[in-house]
Amino acid sequence: MVERDETPETTADEHYFDPSNLEEQWHDYAHLFEKLLEEGREGELSETASDLAPGDLSEIVKPLSVDDTARVIQLLPLDLAADVLSEIDKRSVDALMQLMDIEAIADIVEDMPSDEATDLIGDLEEYQAEKLLAAIEAEDRDEITELLQYSRDTAGGLMAKEFIAVAEDETCLHAVKTVRGLDEDDREDLHFIFVVDRDQRPVGRIPLVELLMQPWSTPVRDVMEPDPQYVSVGLDQEQVAQYVRTHDLVTLPVVDDEERLVGVISADDVLDVMEDEATEDYSMLAGTSSEEFGETSPLIIARARLPWLMGALIGQVACVLMMQHFEAEIATTVALTFFIPAIMAMGGNTGIQTSSVVVRGLATGEVDRFHITRYVGRELVTAVMTGGLISVVLFAIAGLVVGNLDLALVLTLSMFAVILCAALVGTSIPLMLHKFGIDPAIATGPFITTSNDMLAILIYLSMASLMLP
Amino acid sequence: MVERDETPETTADEHYFDPSNLEEQWHDYAHLFEKLLEEGREGELSETASDLAPGDLSEIVKPLSVDDTARVIQLLPLDLAADVLSEIDKRSVDALMQLMDIEAIADIVEDMPSDEATDLIGDLEEYQAEKLLAAIEAEDRDEITELLQYSRDTAGGLMAKEFIAVAEDETCLHAVKTVRGLDEDDREDLHFIFVVDRDQRPVGRIPLVELLMQPWSTPVRDVMEPDPQYVSVGLDQEQVAQYVRTHDLVTLPVVDDEERLVGVISADDVLDVMEDEATEDYSMLAGTSSEEFGETSPLIIARARLPWLMGALIGQVACVLMMQHFEAEIATTVALTFFIPAIMAMGGNTGIQTSSVVVRGLATGEVDRFHITRYVGRELVTAVMTGGLISVVLFAIAGLVVGNLDLALVLTLSMFAVILCAALVGTSIPLMLHKFGIDPAIATGPFITTSNDMLAILIYLSMASLMLP
Repeated sequence: MVERDETPETTADEHYFDPSNLEEQWHDYAHLFEKLLEEGREGELSETASDLAPGDLSEIVKPLSVDDTARVIQLLPLDLAADVLSEIDKRSVDALMQLMDIEAIADIVEDMPSDEATDLIGDLEEYQAEKLLAAIEAEDRDEITELLQYSRDTAGGLMAKEFIAVAEDETCLHAVKTVRGLDEDDREDLHFIFVVDRDQRPVGRIPLVELLMQPWSTPVRDVMEPDPQYVSVGLDQEQVAQYVRTHDLVTLPVVDDEERLVGVISADDVLDVMEDEATEDYSMLAGTSSEEFGETSPLIIARARLPWLMGALIGQVACVLMMQHFEAEIATTVALTFFIPAIMAMGGNTGIQTSSVVVRGLATGEVDRFHITRYVGRELVTAVMTGGLISVVLFAIAGLVVGNLDLALVLTLSMFAVILCAALVGTSIPLMLHKFGIDPAIATGPFITTSNDMLAILIYLSMASLMLP
Repeated sequence: MVERDETPETTADEHYFDPSNLEEQWHDYAHLFEKLLEEGREGELSETASDLAPGDLSEIVKPLSVDDTARVIQLLPLDLAADVLSEIDKRSVDALMQLMDIEAIADIVEDMPSDEATDLIGDLEEYQAEKLLAAIEAEDRDEITELLQYSRDTAGGLMAKEFIAVAEDETCLHAVKTVRGLDEDDREDLHFIFVVDRDQRPVGRIPLVELLMQPWSTPVRDVMEPDPQYVSVGLDQEQVAQYVRTHDLVTLPVVDDEERLVGVISADDVLDVMEDEATEDYSMLAGTSSEEFGETSPLIIARARLPWLMGALIGQVACVLMMQHFEAEIATTVALTFFIPAIMAMGGNTGIQTSSVVVRGLATGEVDRFHITRYVGRELVTAVMTGGLISVVLFAIAGLVVGNLDLALVLTLSMFAVILCAALVGTSIPLMLHKFGIDPAIATGPFITTSNDMLAILIYLSMASLMLP
């Protein structure tokens, strides 16, 4: 008995993950899992895995092959298997469906929160989804079928059906009894009870702590916080995240078109949305698609990147033609060409800096339409400062390297003009796109760099043509 | 009486913000506030503002001038003023200190959660911070002084002192009594009670919902979830965010060097951290500093951007010198120069694509050291595909535009080589930096573009020098 009593403590200590070094520990465990599977030591694996936190286990399993993942999942207790299954990526789920018994998967899915079960089923091929849905018990199936109708990147696609709503004329006791009627799974992330009117519209919320403060005979109406902070099923996930972040919510109610409470979104789902949205903006700035993340096939990655590269190449053909137009000037003063990379690079960098700051500012709400002219003005003043300084430095460099004062003057003036234009283009294009309801993030990265390359070459060679003998 | 009863409902409806269009509504209210202040209709402003959700109010106040912000804050009830003051930015707080009575500010700060009060005081000039601290009541001052010792971007800098810890040998009743002893402010975000051992080390947690399920005579030890998921005060905020996100936590306990529970971090603070970290990586890719966000002075913005621009300019001087070295080749075949922008741009874009995907992958844990060679291999195969296709297209373009087959061949081969090298540099430099514990994000944006510009020119002109007559 003494030994058994001590077991959990030892285990907790052994399996405590140092948060400063998560990746390395996940990595070590993944290796351990691979080794245990290879050597057929499944009992040991099952024991080790069962002691881990679900979050750690999901990360550990990520780099494993699909076959190994399926084997690990089958060795886990139901609730842990559900946690792991909800975190692993799309392709693995498809493959798991081939490898595992459908009834076994159905049992696991029934144990998952409704939003995660829906995501998993939504990722499957249609015939597989139907097969799996048929194997799931009726109550869960109905919830999943309801959630499947909403597009993935909306509030409806994020919400779960695990919430409690009580009528506003009920007492706290009724609320407590409802909570007590829940399964252990369903009360896992329960922090608020929502109060609804006769038409099921949310009129308030009760943090659970208030149920510990008040006599339970009190009507919920007198205990609830009356502010109805909710969103519609159709709201875009980026706006959901902004709403939750600015209002510091833990659980966000979601209503349907008749304003009836139909689901809730929790803060941890919003953390994932923010990660996704940040990755999306970042990808556009980098000139690729966020779909390539987690992708292993070079063909798919290449397909994500090629449109940007090809777009840029088309822009560069324009540059080739412009340069050809100025062939005579270039042949006369070969040293002109030495500075083309510098002019292009400075214009490109300035364009990226300004456009990305506007786009990020629009995403975080930093840039609003309140003081738009002041904003553009500030960017231009900044460009005058950076452009001025860089032009002067360039004058000195050109003087030293080529010793041609005429050329140095052309360089200085065109560098200044290029930086000013790049700042103007970089600021105004995203703002215009935003105004017309187009995602301004497409105007960062290769798009803005290529436009600025063309502009830079045009300005530089035109000035040279005008000013040089 | 009938009228009074109806007031809150009407108000709630009137001030309900449509989540699909937050910015515009904030914007409209900001205009309204400015107008009301200008016309001296302060009673009306106070009434309107008091009906708003704190999150909305903070956003509305953001674009206002410092003077107007101070006037609005003075018109608000204490708790709303606290919410607003904790959200507005650093410079406004400095200025508010000049404009408002110190005692009035102290009252507001006492109403703020300890983490937000600490952030506010930490932002002040030292003499102002001391003056304000002296005006705050002892208990709050002690908490703030304790929190001020931690660096802002660590777990200690994020945590708040508002938490409940009970000893493991206590009963649930004791826990409930402790909750009941809290002020209304302090139970605002209370969703868990933490259980500690004799040395104050966290050994478990009790979701409040469990206190509604169990008879209160049960020892907390039998009710708690035993998994001790906590972090140290010194942990970097990026790792805190990763920990919370992968473990789906709502409240994260923080321990000191002796593993004693000293604070908690809530999910909404993590949302802000993720926003900040995403902005930081994004800024580096864009070649600027995240400090410029929210900045209004062009001088400060220019100072954030100049290091990147100057660094790039130095790299470009190397390009100038290389081109000068190949002056003879350029003078012989002027058409060579027409394609320099295209070669540079494709190398630059490929470098940005690969480096940013690695950096983002490292940040989200997508890229781990588990299969690093497989990862690099995948990038190279991708580069062979994109590079191959682009080189072939370029061959056709060069043939059409300049009609020089030798030049077209040089272009095709060097474009392919440049894209391969750019992919290799873009993948390996961030991975190496990460390995040595340096933030790999510095190797995106201008840094990688400039390196690839040099490489591109060197490869292209060397090949031309070898292969052209």
